[in-house]
Amino acid sequence: MARILIINGPNLNLLGVREPDIYGRLSMEDYIGAIKADYPNVDIDYYQSNHEGDIIDRLHEEGFDSDLNGIVLNAGAYTHTSLAIADAIKAIKVPVIEVHISNVHARESIRHTSLLSPVCRGVIAGFGLDSYRLAIEAFLY
Amino acid sequence: MARILIINGPNLNLLGVREPDIYGRLSMEDYIGAIKADYPNVDIDYYQSNHEGDIIDRLHEEGFDSDLNGIVLNAGAYTHTSLAIADAIKAIKVPVIEVHISNVHARESIRHTSLLSPVCRGVIAGFGLDSYRLAIEAFLY
Amino acid sequence: MARILIINGPNLNLLGVREPDIYGRLSMEDYIGAIKADYPNVDIDYYQSNHEGDIIDRLHEEGFDSDLNGIVLNAGAYTHTSLAIADAIKAIKVPVIEVHISNVHARESIRHTSLLSPVCRGVIAGFGLDSYRLAIEAFLY
Amino acid sequence: MARILIINGPNLNLLGVREPDIYGRLSMEDYIGAIKADYPNVDIDYYQSNHEGDIIDRLHEEGFDSDLNGIVLNAGAYTHTSLAIADAIKAIKVPVIEVHISNVHARESIRHTSLLSPVCRGVIAGFGLDSYRLAIEAFLY
Amino acid sequence: MARILIINGPNLNLLGVREPDIYGRLSMEDYIGAIKADYPNVDIDYYQSNHEGDIIDRLHEEGFDSDLNGIVLNAGAYTHTSLAIADAIKAIKVPVIEVHISNVHARESIRHTSLLSPVCRGVIAGFGLDSYRLAIEAFLY
Amino acid sequence: MARILIINGPNLNLLGVREPDIYGRLSMEDYIGAIKADYPNVDIDYYQSNHEGDIIDRLHEEGFDSDLNGIVLNAGAYTHTSLAIADAIKAIKVPVIEVHISNVHARESIRHTSLLSPVCRGVIAGFGLDSYRLAIEAFLY
Amino acid sequence: MARILIINGPNLNLLGVREPDIYGRLSMEDYIGAIKADYPNVDIDYYQSNHEGDIIDRLHEEGFDSDLNGIVLNAGAYTHTSLAIADAIKAIKVPVIEVHISNVHARESIRHTSLLSPVCRGVIAGFGLDSYRLAIEAFLY
Amino acid sequence: MARILIINGPNLNLLGVREPDIYGRLSMEDYIGAIKADYPNVDIDYYQSNHEGDIIDRLHEEGFDSDLNGIVLNAGAYTHTSLAIADAIKAIKVPVIEVHISNVHARESIRHTSLLSPVCRGVIAGFGLDSYRLAIEAFLY
Amino acid sequence: MARILIINGPNLNLLGVREPDIYGRLSMEDYIGAIKADYPNVDIDYYQSNHEGDIIDRLHEEGFDSDLNGIVLNAGAYTHTSLAIADAIKAIKVPVIEVHISNVHARESIRHTSLLSPVCRGVIAGFGLDSYRLAIEAFLY
Amino acid sequence: MARILIINGPNLNLLGVREPDIYGRLSMEDYIGAIKADYPNVDIDYYQSNHEGDIIDRLHEEGFDSDLNGIVLNAGAYTHTSLAIADAIKAIKVPVIEVHISNVHARESIRHTSLLSPVCRGVIAGFGLDSYRLAIEAFLY
Amino acid sequence: MARILIINGPNLNLLGVREPDIYGRLSMEDYIGAIKADYPNVDIDYYQSNHEGDIIDRLHEEGFDSDLNGIVLNAGAYTHTSLAIADAIKAIKVPVIEVHISNVHARESIRHTSLLSPVCRGVIAGFGLDSYRLAIEAFLY
Amino acid sequence: MARILIINGPNLNLLGVREPDIYGRLSMEDYIGAIKADYPNVDIDYYQSNHEGDIIDRLHEEGFDSDLNGIVLNAGAYTHTSLAIADAIKAIKVPVIEVHISNVHARESIRHTSLLSPVCRGVIAGFGLDSYRLAIEAFLY
Repeated sequence: MARILIINGPNLNLLGVREPDIYGRLSMEDYIGAIKADYPNVDIDYYQSNHEGDIIDRLHEEGFDSDLNGIVLNAGAYTHTSLAIADAIKAIKVPVIEVHISNVHARESIRHTSLLSPVCRGVIAGFGLDSYRLAIEAFLY
Repeated sequence: MARILIINGPNLNLLGVREPDIYGRLSMEDYIGAIKADYPNVDIDYYQSNHEGDIIDRLHEEGFDSDLNGIVLNAGAYTHTSLAIADAIKAIKVPVIEVHISNVHARESIRHTSLLSPVCRGVIAGFGLDSYRLAIEAFLY
Repeated sequence: MARILIINGPNLNLLGVREPDIYGRLSMEDYIGAIKADYPNVDIDYYQSNHEGDIIDRLHEEGFDSDLNGIVLNAGAYTHTSLAIADAIKAIKVPVIEVHISNVHARESIRHTSLLSPVCRGVIAGFGLDSYRLAIEAFLY
Repeated sequence: MARILIINGPNLNLLGVREPDIYGRLSMEDYIGAIKADYPNVDIDYYQSNHEGDIIDRLHEEGFDSDLNGIVLNAGAYTHTSLAIADAIKAIKVPVIEVHISNVHARESIRHTSLLSPVCRGVIAGFGLDSYRLAIEAFLY
Repeated sequence: MARILIINGPNLNLLGVREPDIYGRLSMEDYIGAIKADYPNVDIDYYQSNHEGDIIDRLHEEGFDSDLNGIVLNAGAYTHTSLAIADAIKAIKVPVIEVHISNVHARESIRHTSLLSPVCRGVIAGFGLDSYRLAIEAFLY
Repeated sequence: MARILIINGPNLNLLGVREPDIYGRLSMEDYIGAIKADYPNVDIDYYQSNHEGDIIDRLHEEGFDSDLNGIVLNAGAYTHTSLAIADAIKAIKVPVIEVHISNVHARESIRHTSLLSPVCRGVIAGFGLDSYRLAIEAFLY
Repeated sequence: MARILIINGPNLNLLGVREPDIYGRLSMEDYIGAIKADYPNVDIDYYQSNHEGDIIDRLHEEGFDSDLNGIVLNAGAYTHTSLAIADAIKAIKVPVIEVHISNVHARESIRHTSLLSPVCRGVIAGFGLDSYRLAIEAFLY
Repeated sequence: MARILIINGPNLNLLGVREPDIYGRLSMEDYIGAIKADYPNVDIDYYQSNHEGDIIDRLHEEGFDSDLNGIVLNAGAYTHTSLAIADAIKAIKVPVIEVHISNVHARESIRHTSLLSPVCRGVIAGFGLDSYRLAIEAFLY
Repeated sequence: MARILIINGPNLNLLGVREPDIYGRLSMEDYIGAIKADYPNVDIDYYQSNHEGDIIDRLHEEGFDSDLNGIVLNAGAYTHTSLAIADAIKAIKVPVIEVHISNVHARESIRHTSLLSPVCRGVIAGFGLDSYRLAIEAFLY
Repeated sequence: MARILIINGPNLNLLGVREPDIYGRLSMEDYIGAIKADYPNVDIDYYQSNHEGDIIDRLHEEGFDSDLNGIVLNAGAYTHTSLAIADAIKAIKVPVIEVHISNVHARESIRHTSLLSPVCRGVIAGFGLDSYRLAIEAFLY
Repeated sequence: MARILIINGPNLNLLGVREPDIYGRLSMEDYIGAIKADYPNVDIDYYQSNHEGDIIDRLHEEGFDSDLNGIVLNAGAYTHTSLAIADAIKAIKVPVIEVHISNVHARESIRHTSLLSPVCRGVIAGFGLDSYRLAIEAFLY
Repeated sequence: MARILIINGPNLNLLGVREPDIYGRLSMEDYIGAIKADYPNVDIDYYQSNHEGDIIDRLHEEGFDSDLNGIVLNAGAYTHTSLAIADAIKAIKVPVIEVHISNVHARESIRHTSLLSPVCRGVIAGFGLDSYRLAIEAFLY
C-alpha cells in the first residue's frame, strides 16, 4: 500500500479563511478528507506548521523511510526564503514534489523565485487544491 | 467527449534523440500514442513546430473553440524568450497549462524565468513525459 | 501619390477580439478601411504576420523602394524582444515610425523597453487606433 | 472653440540656439506662431519655465479647467527625474500628451526612462517640432 | 508654548481634490484648522510649496530657531528624488519628522525609497491625515 | 474598553541590554508597565518571541478577534526577511501597525526594505520606545 | 571529400547593401563563390533565412549527418536573443562554429552576450568575411 | 578551566548521513566525542537545532556568561538568510566564531554571502570537521 | 580683464554653519572676499540659489557672454540629481568647471555619480574652499 | 618576410601541466616549434609573462614597429581584469588579435566579459592551440 | 619534517605601520620569528611582494613541490581583483589556504568577495596574526 | 624648499604618441621640464611605470618621508581596477592627489568609478597636462 505525506507550511492552516479569492473557501481538513476518500489504497498523512524548524524536523523524521513514496510540500512563503528547508529536501532520500495552490508566477515578483524547486523532483502550481491531487498522481505513476 | 490539444515548441521534435539523459529516450510520437490509448474518451491533438509564429497562429486558430477543454503547451526555449506567445495565450479564451519535461528550475538560470507562466492557468514541470499526462488530468478534473 | 505601408506584428490580427478593454473592439480591417477613406490620395498597404521572420522579409522587400514614403510599424511583443527586426529597420532606406495602440509605458515593465525605438524615426504610443493615423500624418508633413 | 496649452520645460527656451544639430535652428516662438496660423480655430497657449515647481503650479492652475482640451507637455530633462510633475499630471483632470522633439530613445540611456509616460494619455517623440503638431492633432480627433 | 511647523511639498495643495481614494476628501486647510483647535497650547505654522527650492529656503529660515520644537515634513514626491532637501534637513538644527498620508510602501516601488528618512528623526506613514497629528504628538513627548 | 496587543520579535527581549546606544537602557517590561499606567482604559497585552513561527501562530490566534482594536508589531530582524509573517498579517482581519525603535532607514541597507510595510496599516519608526506609544495613539484615534 | 554548411541568419541577405561601413560592400553570394574556388576539395553549402524557426529546422536536418564536417553559423541578431537556436545546436551531433563579420564586442552592449557561444565549439569574430574562411580552416585542421 | 559552546544549525544533525561527498561520513556526536578527548582541559558543550528561534534563544542564554570563552557557530543555511541570528550575535557579549565544514565559497552563489560574518570575531571555512577544532584553538590562543 | 562667475547650489549659503567638520567654518561671503583680494585683475561674480530653476536661468543668462572666461559651478546635491542643469551646461557656450568642497567620492555612494561631469570641462573636488581657487587658476592658464 | 609576435599572459607557461582536461597536454614551447615549422616564411616571436606590466611594456616596445604584421595575444585571466592592457592595445599601431585556447564563453561567467575585445581587431576562441594558428592565418590574409 | 610557505601580498610589508587599529602594531618579520620558534619541527618560508606577477611566479615555482605541505596565502587587495592568482592556485598541486588578518566581511563591500576562495582549500579570516597560525595548524592536522 | 613627487601609471609613457586627440601631442618629459622651470623653488620628482607593483613600491618608499609635501598620482587605468594601490595610498602618511588628463567622466563608463578617489585628498580631472600643475598648486596652498 502506497504512503504519501502532505506537508503544509505557514498560514496554510487558514485555508478557507485567508484571502478566499486567491485560495478558495474550502478548509484543508475537508480537502484532505475528500482526497483520502478518493484514494482508498493510499495511506495519506497530513502535517502543517507555521515553524520553519518544524518542517525541517518532520522532513528529517520521514525522509529516510523507505516505505514512504513521496512528500507533497507546499511550503507557503518559506518557498521563497528558506534555504534551510531546501537543504533538508536535498539531504533526505524520499522524493519531494513542490506544490502551490495559486499560480505563484502571476503574483508579486518575490513569489517568482523558489529556493526549493531546484532540489524537488518537480513543481505543480496554479490548480487550486487539485495541485495536491496532481502531485499524488505523479507519485503513483 | 473531451478534446485537448498538445503543442510542443522548438527542438521537442528531437525527443528521444536530443540529450537523452535529460529528456529520456522515448519519442514524442510514441508517447502521444500511449497517452491516447490511456484516454480513449479524450480526443487528443498534437502539434509541433520550431517556429514561434506557427505556435502563435495555432493558438489563435484553436483558442476560441468552445469545444476545446484546454491546451497543454511545452514551448521549449520560447518559454523564456517569447513575449509574443504570452500575448497570444492571454488573448485567447481556451485555458493553457504550461508543462516542462525536465525540472527547469534545476537547470541554467535563463530557464528559471518563464514569460508564459503568469498568463497560464498553471505550471507542471519535472515529471518527464508524465508532465503532459498530469496536465491532461488537470483539465479533466 | 504618396504610398505608406502599415505592418502589424503578432496578435494584432486579433484586434477587436483580444483584451478589448486595452485595445478596443474595432477590427484592424475595419480601421484600415476607414483610414483609406480618409486619405484618398494616399496608397495605403497593410500587412500582418505573427512571424518575426515574415516581418523582416517584408521590411527587406519594401525597404529600398524609393516610392514608399514610410512604414508604420506596430511590432507588438516583438518590439521588446526582436533585435533582428531592429537590425532590419536599420538596414533599410525607407523610414519607419514605431506605433503602439496602448500606452505601453503604463503597462508591465517588460513593455517599457523597445529595441526598435533607437532605429526608428519616431515613436507614437497610447492613442488607440489613432496612433496609426498620427503616424501617417507624420509621414505626410 | 478648442483650447490647447503647450508647456515646455527646462532649456527649451534655448530652442534654435542649443545644439541645433539635435533640436533644429527654429526658435519655439516662431514655431508657435506658425502653428497658430495653421490652426485658426484652436486657442493655443504657450508657457515655458526652467523651474520644476512652476510647471507643477501651471498644471494645477489649468488642469481642472473643463474648457481646456488638453495639455501638450515637453518636460525636457524633468521627464526623466521629476516624480512631482508626474504626480501633478495624475492629480489633474485635463489629459496630457508627452512630446519630445528628438527621438529620446536614440540618445543616452538616462533619457530612455520617462517618469511621466505612465500617467500621460500618450507619447509622441522624434518628429522635431512636428511632435507638437501631432499632439494637437491627437487632441482634435 | 510649543511651536511646530508643518511643511507640505508638491501637489499636497490639491488635498481633497487629488486622487481622493488614496488621500481622502478633506482639504489640508480644514485639517490644519482642526489640529489647531485640538492643540490650543501649540503654535502650529503651515507652509506648502510645489518648489523644491522654496522648501529648502524655508527649512533654512526656520531650522536654526531654538524656539521651534520641530518640523513635520511631508515632502511628497520630493521625498524620493531630492537629495538637496535631505542636505538641508541634515544642515539645520531643528529636528524633522517625515510623514506620509498614504502607506508609501504599499504603492509603486519608486515610492519605497526615501532620501529623507536617514536624516530625519523618525518616519510616520499610512495614517491618513492623522500622520501629521502623530508627528506633533512625537514632538510633544 | 479598547484592547491592543503588542508583539515583539527576535532580540527585543534584550532591550535595555543590547546595544544601548541604539535602543536605550530601559527594559521592555518596565516600558510596558509605564504605558499601561498611562492608558488605564486600554487593555494592553504584550508578547515576545524569537521564533518566526510563534509570531505567526499568535497573529493567527488573535487576528480574527473582533474585540481587538489592533496589533502593534515590532518584528525586529524578521521585518526584513519574513514573507511568512507578511502573509499572516495579510490573512488576518485585525489591523497591524509596524513599529521600530530606531530609525531603520539610517542604519545598514538591509534594514531599509520591509516585507511587512505593504500589508500593514502604517509604519512608525525612529522614536525610541515612544514608537509603541504613537502606534497605540493611532489605533485610538 | 570534406563537407561544410554555412548558415546565415537575419539580415545577412542584405550583405553588400546594409551598413557597408560595418559589413563591407561585397555580397554574400559573391563571397561564397570566391570561397568555393579557394577550397575546390570542400563541398560548401550555403543557407540563409530571416526566420528563427527555419534555422532550427535546417540545423535539425543536417545536424545528424555524419558526412558533414561542421556548420559555420552567423546567426546575426538571433545570436543574442535565441535560446531556441542554442538548444538546437546543443541537441545535434555536428559541431558548430559561431562567426561574426564585425567585432561584436566593439558595438552596442546587447551584442556582447551570445546565447550560442557556450554550446558552440568555438567563436571567430571581427575579421570581415574572412571570419567564415577561418572557420572553414578550423574544421579542416 | 576554559568553556566553549558549539552550536550547530539546521540539517547538521544529519552529518554523516547527508551528502557525505561534501560533509563526510562521521556523525557530529562521534566528532564531538573525539574533540572532547583531545581537549581534556576544556569544557565543551554542544547544541543543535533546526529552529532559527532556538539558536537565538540559546545565544541569549549563554551570551552574557562571563565564564564562557566563546561560541563556535555553524548556522548552516541560516548563515545566509537570518538577520535575526546576526542581531543576536551582535547583542551578546561572548565572542562568536563562524565555521563551515565545506568551503562555502566553492558552492552555489547564495552561499557566498554570510549575514553573520560582519558580527563574528572571525570566520573559518572549508576544513571539514577540523573547522570546529581550529575555532576552539582560536579561542584558546 | 578676465571675468569669472561662481555659482553655488543648494545649502551652500549655509557654509560655515552646516556640518563644519566637513565643510569648514568660513562663510562663503568671507571666502569670496578673500579670493577677490587675491585676484585683483579678475572680475569675480558670485551667485547662490537653492532653486534648480534659478541655476538654469542664470546659466542661460551668462552662458552666451563672450566676455565671460568661465563658470565655476558647485551645484551641491543637484550635481547628482539634475539632468536639467546638465542640459543647460551642454547648451551654453561658456565653459563650466565642476567643483566640490569635500571629496565627494569619500562620502555616501549617491554622491559618487555626477550628472554634470560629462558636460563640464573638468572636475576639482576635495580641496575645501581652495577648490574654487584652483578652478579660477584653471580658467586663467 | 612576415613577422608575427605571440604574447601569452599569466599561467600559460604551465600549458601541458595546468588543468590538461581544459588546456591539453602539449607545452607551449613544443607548439610554437610546430607552428614555426609550418610557417617557414613567417618570423614568429614568442613572449610569456605572468606580469601585467611586462605585457604592457612589451606591447609598447613592439607596437610601433611597422615591420610587425600583428600581435597574437592570449592575455589569460588579465583578459577579464586589465583595463591597462586594453589601453596599451588601443595606444599602439600594430593590430592585435585576441585568442583563447578554451571556449571562455562555456566557462564561469567572469570569463564571459573581455576588456580587450573592443580594442582588438578580432577574437578567436575555443580551438585549442589551433586558435593561435587561426590568428596567424588571419594576419596573413 | 613538514614545510610550509607563507606568501603575503601587497602592502603587508607595512604591517605594524599601516592602519595599526585594523592590523596591529607587530611587524610581520617579528611575527614570523615567533611562529618559527613555536613550530621548531616545521620549515616555514616567508615571501612578500607587492607585484601580482611575483606572487604568480612564486606559486608556480613552489606549487609542484611534493615536499611542501601547503601554502598560506594572504593576497591582500589582490584577493578581490586577481583572477590570475586564482588561476595559478587552481593550476598548482600544493594546497593553498586563504588567510586574512582582519575580518574582511566587516569592512567595505568590495572586500566581501574573494576571487581566490573557490579555489583554495579553506579560508580563515579575522584572527589577527593568529590567522596564519591557524592555517599552519590546519595543514598539520 | 617644497618637494613633490609625480607618479604616472600605465601607458602614460606614451604621452604625445597615444591617442593625441584625447591626450595631446606633448610628451610627459617635455611637460615636466616646463613645470620645473615654472616652479624653481619646488623640487619635483617624476616616476612612471606600467607595473602596478612598482607604483605600490614607490608609494611605500616615499610615503613616510616627512619632507615630501605630496604625491601627484595619475594611475591611468589602474585608477579603476587597483584596490592594492588604494590600500597603499591609505597606508602611507604623505597626502596624494589623484589627477587625470582627460575628463574621465565623459568617457566609457568603466572610467567613471575610481577606487583611489576615496583615499586621496582630492581629485582633479579634465584639464589636460594642466591637471598636474593644478595639483602642485593645491599642495602649495
